[in-house]
Parts: sequence; structure tokens; C-alpha cells
Amino acid sequence: MSSETFGFEILKECNHTGARAGRFHTPHGWVDTPCFMPVGTQATVKTLTPEELAMVGAQIILSNTYHLYLRPGAETVRKLGGLHRFMHWSGPILTDSGGFQVFSLSKLCTVSEEGVLFRSHLDGSLHFLSPELVMAVQGDLGADIVMQFDQCVPYPCVREAAAEAAERTVRWAARSKAALPREDQALFPIVQGSVYRDLREENARQLIALDCPGYAIGGLSVGEPKSIMNEVIEWVVPLLPQLKPRYLMGVGSPDSLFEGVARGMDMFDCVLPTRIARNGTVWTSAGKLVVRNAEYAEDPLPLDPLCRCYTCRHYSRAYLRHLIKAGEVLGIRLTTLHNLHFVLRLMQNMRAALLAGRFPEYLDRARETLCPLFNREQADEQPEASGI
Amino acid sequence: MSSETFGFEILKECNHTGARAGRFHTPHGWVDTPCFMPVGTQATVKTLTPEELAMVGAQIILSNTYHLYLRPGAETVRKLGGLHRFMHWSGPILTDSGGFQVFSLSKLCTVSEEGVLFRSHLDGSLHFLSPELVMAVQGDLGADIVMQFDQCVPYPCVREAAAEAAERTVRWAARSKAALPREDQALFPIVQGSVYRDLREENARQLIALDCPGYAIGGLSVGEPKSIMNEVIEWVVPLLPQLKPRYLMGVGSPDSLFEGVARGMDMFDCVLPTRIARNGTVWTSAGKLVVRNAEYAEDPLPLDPLCRCYTCRHYSRAYLRHLIKAGEVLGIRLTTLHNLHFVLRLMQNMRAALLAGRFPEYLDRARETLCPLFNREQADEQPEASGI
Repeated sequence: MSSETFGFEILKECNHTGARAGRFHTPHGWVDTPCFMPVGTQATVKTLTPEELAMVGAQIILSNTYHLYLRPGAETVRKLGGLHRFMHWSGPILTDSGGFQVFSLSKLCTVSEEGVLFRSHLDGSLHFLSPELVMAVQGDLGADIVMQFDQCVPYPCVREAAAEAAERTVRWAARSKAALPREDQALFPIVQGSVYRDLREENARQLIALDCPGYAIGGLSVGEPKSIMNEVIEWVVPLLPQLKPRYLMGVGSPDSLFEGVARGMDMFDCVLPTRIARNGTVWTSAGKLVVRNAEYAEDPLPLDPLCRCYTCRHYSRAYLRHLIKAGEVLGIRLTTLHNLHFVLRLMQNMRAALLAGRFPEYLDRARETLCPLFNREQADEQPEASGI
Repeated sequence: MSSETFGFEILKECNHTGARAGRFHTPHGWVDTPCFMPVGTQATVKTLTPEELAMVGAQIILSNTYHLYLRPGAETVRKLGGLHRFMHWSGPILTDSGGFQVFSLSKLCTVSEEGVLFRSHLDGSLHFLSPELVMAVQGDLGADIVMQFDQCVPYPCVREAAAEAAERTVRWAARSKAALPREDQALFPIVQGSVYRDLREENARQLIALDCPGYAIGGLSVGEPKSIMNEVIEWVVPLLPQLKPRYLMGVGSPDSLFEGVARGMDMFDCVLPTRIARNGTVWTSAGKLVVRNAEYAEDPLPLDPLCRCYTCRHYSRAYLRHLIKAGEVLGIRLTTLHNLHFVLRLMQNMRAALLAGRFPEYLDRARETLCPLFNREQADEQPEASGI
């Protein structure tokens, strides 16, 4: 398959910010950017069907190599026709490399130049993953976009450790590219380097030499102040190829999405909207609403009176609170659906503003009204292990 | 509202069995009989939306007065527009009386002629329910069909206790009728009497004197052999009004549905198909299938290759097993959907056979092929407390 398969069209660039509206082509259809990718950790976006994901506007979803490698196993997925067929999602899929999970979820044993020895968080069994093995696993899964195996460091991280991990990530990117098993998969390298400008810049320069169809910024949203996250993006973006999609990993709070898009990022993913939904918290045009709270016990209003999602068209806060308090699955289905609708609609609105040439005004208004409702000082999302 | 509101048309009677096909009219639309009512214990048929219930062919659902009385409270449901609006189900609803739950789930305190003092299974709080209070609660909930508060006895039960409970149930039926708060609700009395023929017959005779729009047989499917259950039905049915619907409470295994319909019962409910689905067991045209078993780990077939439900059209046994093993909600959504499709389709097929005048042959074939796959000696379903 030619590189045309993964062509990226830029349809409109903002004159006052780094934002752009584009379209990224994959073997399973295109993705309108900027885009948010709902996270389907275990080959399912928790509680929802693929039809429901499409209904709320998802064009691409993310699934986790680490989780699928452990259960049900990549070979099993391959035998069953690959991830698309396995989970009945016919649109584009991105699989992460498992790097983040190996370094955060599993009991880590040894990191060497060759790869990582770790114990499964499920049963303690011993596993070894290398850049080549991760490429083979992702080849079995068959996602459209595959991420390189990277070495993630926590925040804060001393410079020496950050440098070592960043340099290793570059070497692993080259090995990943050499090992890419299929031509119908786009490999995205991941820029690391923690919060050190020279490390980030050097990392980006070396990775772009690999000439991949897209690039990601990793190692952010791991507990650092949001101002630092935005600064890192500002250092890296100018070095990334203008004509290729840029993916900000693990970012998804509404305010961070605006700031990421404004700085030229095209793709985002985050467990936040789906995870908080399962705790009974939803995002609305008036900010966060903890629908499980007692104050909503007799509230006949929908979660967000301005929202047109399925949940808001048919159910009251009182009913949703009842379901969640009673441990009923339908409750977290409905809050999950609402939150994904909310965040996907936000991306659609940003894109529409970009295409209409009025993104700066839209961003200004969002920074004044919507973003402060969601802003927290830290970007500190953690990966999810499993279950609900 | 006139009694026409709850008119029951008999469209076809079987010449060789007691079975009949009918249509029962309610303020929220009609119900084609024989029918199976999915159980929505806490104002939700676990894991599913109302649209999905309609998709699998549900025309009427059952909800539990005991559970809704305790949480969120009947007055809350009334303030929010009643159960139909609260849970976004616009079709007919039947609420049970809570009798079964009070005697099986709660910590019982005292039964008196006036009513029952009991402790909530949720928080141990003390509550009192009488026939009149139960009618008021069901008035607040606003179901189309409401059940009388009855005194249930376990199986086995000595004759003296069964007689006392049955006689009290008759007195409570009369009090329920006198207390019925709304004209748009149909009250169904419940025939009790355990396994004692004279008690059952006397009970039925006394209850039909109340001239209610429908009658139920209760106290079955509580652990007695299925042969005894069928015998009790045979004693009672000839005494019930021919032109009113007959509801067999708590019965829903495929073989029991056939035997109930063959003996002239029109309505059924049971937690079985939805509960076993949440444990990873499904009903298929080849019998029970425990999809969580390891043997299905790489099985690309649908649950039932002969089934046309959403689950069977799109998902493999291997994927469903993966979801259930991984604790993913989508797994139990999909098995629940399948099981309800299976049992509702069974009822539709029985009705079609009745209307076409070929029910005896259909029954014979089912007794030879399908029923033995599902038959167990005992009918021993228990009520569900809450959660999944």
C-alpha cells in the first residue's frame, strides 16, 4: 500500500494560531481533524457498541496493545480476523504500543536496550516486549495506526533519566520502523524528553528523520502543570512536519483540547470522559456535574439542557442518579454516551470554526467561558487497568 | 376509564390444548399474548435501553414495587412523571406488589392481618406495607397493570401455613380492590395455596368473585418439581375467567413457557434469561451455552448460528467470552440482548403457530427437541436483590 493510503490533507489553517483542520486517510476510512479518539482499552469502549460510538460522532478509536496482548492475546485476535472484525468496528483504529502501560500498570522487572521484562498486572506472569515484538503484536491486531514502543518516564524526572529514556526511544523508533510487518499500517514515533527543552527538540529532530506518516508527543499529561504541558507542545510542534498529523497522547480535558488544537495538534485521546462517566460525573456546557450527588435525586432536567445527545433527549438527572446509586449498568452507559458526545461535539465545533475562518474568536470565547469550568492545575490522568 | 381500556380479545383458541392467542389492551398500548415480560427490577431491564427492548420484541415489561418503593421511592417516581416517563418506556408496564420480595429478600419482622413489617435489604431500615399502602405505591408508580399485595409461602410449606396465607391473600385482594387509587390501572389478584389442590381451587373461586380484569397464579417456580407446577396450573386454569388474561408469575424457562401456554396461561415473567446472561450463559436453539467457558476462546461462530439478533449478527463467541472474562459491560449487554431476543421470539413463534392453527404440532416438536435441552427438574428461581 502506498503512502497515499495515509495521506493527510490540510483543509484550512488558522491565521492567528497554530490550529488547522485536516483529513487523515487510512485503510478503514478517513478521520477529520482535529479529532478525539475514544479509548477502547480491551477492544471495547467501555459500555458502548460501535454503533453508539458512531452515533456520538467517533471516527477513530484507540485500543491498548498491552491489554490485548495479555488478554485475549494478539494471535487470538488475528485468528478471529483482526481487531476491526473482532470488535465489530469498521472505522479506523489506532493501537498504542503498550509502553505507557508497561511502565505504569505492570510490575516492571528490567529495562534493557533490547526491551522490557515485566510482570502482567492480571496474573503476575512474566513477559518480554521489545520494539520488534510490539510491532508484531500490533501487526496481529491490525490497527490502521500503530505506535512505536517507547520508554516512558514519570513526572518529575531527573534530566539524566529523561535523556536516557528519550534517546532509547529514538533507537526503538528506528527498530520499530525496520520491523513494521505490514504496509497497511502507519507507524507514528513518539517524541519524549520530559520537560527538558533540548531533549524534546533533539528527540523530535531525530525522529522526523525516519519520515513516518505521523508523529506523537508522549510523556505529557502525567502530573505536570498544564502550563508546562502547553510549553512542551510549543517547543515540539515547530519541529514536526507541517504536512503530517500530530497526535497529543493522553490528553482530553476540554480546556487542554482547546490549547492543544490552538498549538497545532491534530489528534487526541484520553480515558477521562469515559472514566469519570462511570463514576457518575459528566461534562456539560455549564461545567462538571456529579449526577450521583443527592441534590439531583428529584431533578427532572437532563444532564445538560443544551445537549442533544440520546441521554439528554430522554432521561432526567434524577433517573440517572437512581441508576448509578443502584449499581445499574444503564446508568454508566448513558453518562458515557453523554460525555463522549460532549467531547466529540467540542472537536466538531472547533473544526467547524476553523473551516469557517473564525477559530480565534471561538478560542477566545472558550478560554473565557468554557475552559475555566474544566481547568485544573495538573494534567494527571492515569491509565486504567481493566473492568469498570 | 372504562373496563374497555383493559379489554382482552381472544383471537384464536387451540382445539387440542388450552392455549390461546389474544390481545390485551392497556392505556399504553396493547400486548399480544401469549407474552413474556422482561423484568426491570429497578426501573431498568438490566443493561438495556427501552429502544433495545423494543428491538428484541418486548411489548410489556415488569418492574418491582418493593425495589422502587425503597429506592428511589414511589413519591419521587410520581414527581418525575411516573414510571413510564422516569424510565423512558412508553409501552405497557406491570408492577408486582412487592409481596414476593418482602417474603424472600427483606428481613421479615411481623405479618399481621393489617400488613407486613419488614427491614429493607438495602440498609436495614424498618418499613410497613399493607394492601392499601401497596396500592398507593403502585398508584404513584403508575403502571398499567398492578398486582395485589399477597402473602407468599416457601416450598415446601405445611398445609396449615399455606391455608392461612392463601386465605389472607384473598382478604388482601378485596382490600386492594377497594383501595385501587386510579381507574387507569388494572388490578390482578394472585391465586395462592401452595401445592394443595383444595386450597388453590377455593382461592381461585373466591378471587374471581372480585371481577378483576386479569388473574395471576403465584407461589410457583419457588423450588417445586416442574411436574407439580404444571399440575397446579391445570387445577387453577379451569376456574379462572375464560375471557380474561392469566398470568403465571416468575416462570420463564423455555420448556416451562411451552407447558404454561399449552395449559392456557397468557402472560409470563422471569429474571432467568437476563440473570443467566450476566453470568455468561445464553439460550440457543441447541440449548444452553456457557460462553464464558474456555472452549469458546477462539470460536468465530455467533452464539447461535440460527439467531438473527444484533449480537449474533455481529459478534463471535470468542469476542463475547473475552468481554465477559475482562469484566466488560458490553459483554453482558450483548448476552442479555440475545437471551431476551431468544425468549421473546419463542413467544412470537408460539403465537404464530396458534394463529395458524398448528400449535399442537409445534408443541409436540418443541417437547421432543427444544424443551429437553432446557428442562431441569426444579423450578427454583430466586428474586434478585440489586446490581449486576
